[in-house]
Amino acid sequence: LAATMAAALFDGRLRYVTDHPVPARKPGWALIRVRTAGICKTDRELMKGYREFRGVLGHEFIGVVEESDDPVWTGRRVAGEINAACGCCEWCAQGLGRHCPHRTTLGIVNHDGCLAEYCVLPVANLIEIPATIPDERAILLEPLSAACEILEQLPVRGEERIVVIGDGRLGILCAWALATVASDVTLLGRHAGKLALAQWRGIKTALSADFTTLEGADIVVEATGSGQGISAAIKLCRPRGVIILKSTVAQPQNINLAPIVINELSVIGSRCGRFGDGLQMIQDFPDMPLPKMITARYPLAQVEDAFIRAARSDALKVLLDISL
Amino acid sequence: LAATMAAALFDGRLRYVTDHPVPARKPGWALIRVRTAGICKTDRELMKGYREFRGVLGHEFIGVVEESDDPVWTGRRVAGEINAACGCCEWCAQGLGRHCPHRTTLGIVNHDGCLAEYCVLPVANLIEIPATIPDERAILLEPLSAACEILEQLPVRGEERIVVIGDGRLGILCAWALATVASDVTLLGRHAGKLALAQWRGIKTALSADFTTLEGADIVVEATGSGQGISAAIKLCRPRGVIILKSTVAQPQNINLAPIVINELSVIGSRCGRFGDGLQMIQDFPDMPLPKMITARYPLAQVEDAFIRAARSDALKVLLDISL
Repeated sequence: LAATMAAALFDGRLRYVTDHPVPARKPGWALIRVRTAGICKTDRELMKGYREFRGVLGHEFIGVVEESDDPVWTGRRVAGEINAACGCCEWCAQGLGRHCPHRTTLGIVNHDGCLAEYCVLPVANLIEIPATIPDERAILLEPLSAACEILEQLPVRGEERIVVIGDGRLGILCAWALATVASDVTLLGRHAGKLALAQWRGIKTALSADFTTLEGADIVVEATGSGQGISAAIKLCRPRGVIILKSTVAQPQNINLAPIVINELSVIGSRCGRFGDGLQMIQDFPDMPLPKMITARYPLAQVEDAFIRAARSDALKVLLDISL
Repeated sequence: LAATMAAALFDGRLRYVTDHPVPARKPGWALIRVRTAGICKTDRELMKGYREFRGVLGHEFIGVVEESDDPVWTGRRVAGEINAACGCCEWCAQGLGRHCPHRTTLGIVNHDGCLAEYCVLPVANLIEIPATIPDERAILLEPLSAACEILEQLPVRGEERIVVIGDGRLGILCAWALATVASDVTLLGRHAGKLALAQWRGIKTALSADFTTLEGADIVVEATGSGQGISAAIKLCRPRGVIILKSTVAQPQNINLAPIVINELSVIGSRCGRFGDGLQMIQDFPDMPLPKMITARYPLAQVEDAFIRAARSDALKVLLDISL
């Protein structure tokens, strides 16, 4: 194994480098050869200063285990949960390692990411991808699991009127995940093309201009990726309704909280989910149109172009092919 | 009955007037002669521009029914819920009249308040105060019921670590209401005198400087009455914990929402409660030190002095004696 590798490094600006150190594998961890990686809105937030991250970007990947303590893992095609918990605090003891205060996070907190030839993660974080699921479906496991997290946090009976705001990748995946259990799901967005692509299982779509007719929703999922989403969600939600907050925004937002109190809304923050739930959903709903989400694919050496493509308003998921 | 009355009128500035029209009683409503009224932080927010209110201020009162359709009510000593619902929309049909979109609100929305010799409310809003409960306990029914609302919205098991932020009237009442069901309640404030007064049923108190030792709370009640309270609550709350938002603040606040998402917090807006719950608590806990909350009493003609007194940092509840 070489000591250095190609990687997309962010050190204040994004650069493709070929001499980045291959990350060291700790006991209990696996070294993974990355096949395919995705660019996420969070990567672009990190580049704007979120968490003051410096290092190799990227936290969505499909790869093959190159080395691990247990040889049974070697050669397996895997995805990986991005939070590396300490394994010994009270959160970890409760099985909530993704809230461990000592965790590192792949490509986000103190942990070089997967826009590189290799990355490392605890073996406990890995999930084997069945051979029947191609990379371009499996690569959406991380955001789809984040969408599934809503169903873990909130009991959805099925007859609720649900509005998802944001026709980006996460918003569409949230609408798809909710449509597996609820019949009245509306996706609200700004891009007719993305809304058309999101049609599945009777999901209704509306351009943001149509807002007012949607007021009084029982559940509003805010997945705009922008700081203004919460104010729109507050407007759309009925008294005593629930807002699921999905967007992680670096900058503090100016928000009028009074309607939350007056209408007794519940605002529930929702982050990553369990990959097992996402994988189960991929297997249970083989007609979920995940590959429609792939906007473009680039080799890693063209990572700067890939980020430019990913920043365009029509982009959903831009992939980097690394060692297919 | 005279056609005009004394009242505390806000028309851009606060004035004591003696020629305000006695409000007209609609069918199903009662005309109430006000005995004692309280000044609330919301009154001061209204004077800063909240809801662009113009009219007679005040929504906390104990009075005697002067006139009603049903003579059985005449002469009864009562308090009243402040939201006058339309009675015929889907919210009203669900018994959630306090969220009725067509409601008026005593002294807050399109409805002259109780800092006056008379006010009107639907008879359905009134609750008779047993003769055993003096005005200075009963006058706290509205804010105590708002504190009880937390227990209606959130199942509290009793072993949770609870922190209440804000040693104003509402914060203290929230701490007292929670202390009736939970053993680990800490009240966090800025005023040693108010914190000392709040001691009851083992409530712990801390000056705001001691913040950091309180991190990791299961439930945080934000009752600071200021826009900064939410950010403090977010800091104090454990991952997956619950924040109860009590403060109604007129101005939009600059808030970093990212920790709500990352720590998957639930932020639950909480407003008024049912007076029946508050009255039950007053009766069940006769040792609850409610009269300690009365900072000063003024005649209505001195309403401007009363508001000045209520604005001082050591004030809890300032009363106006109107027609005792």
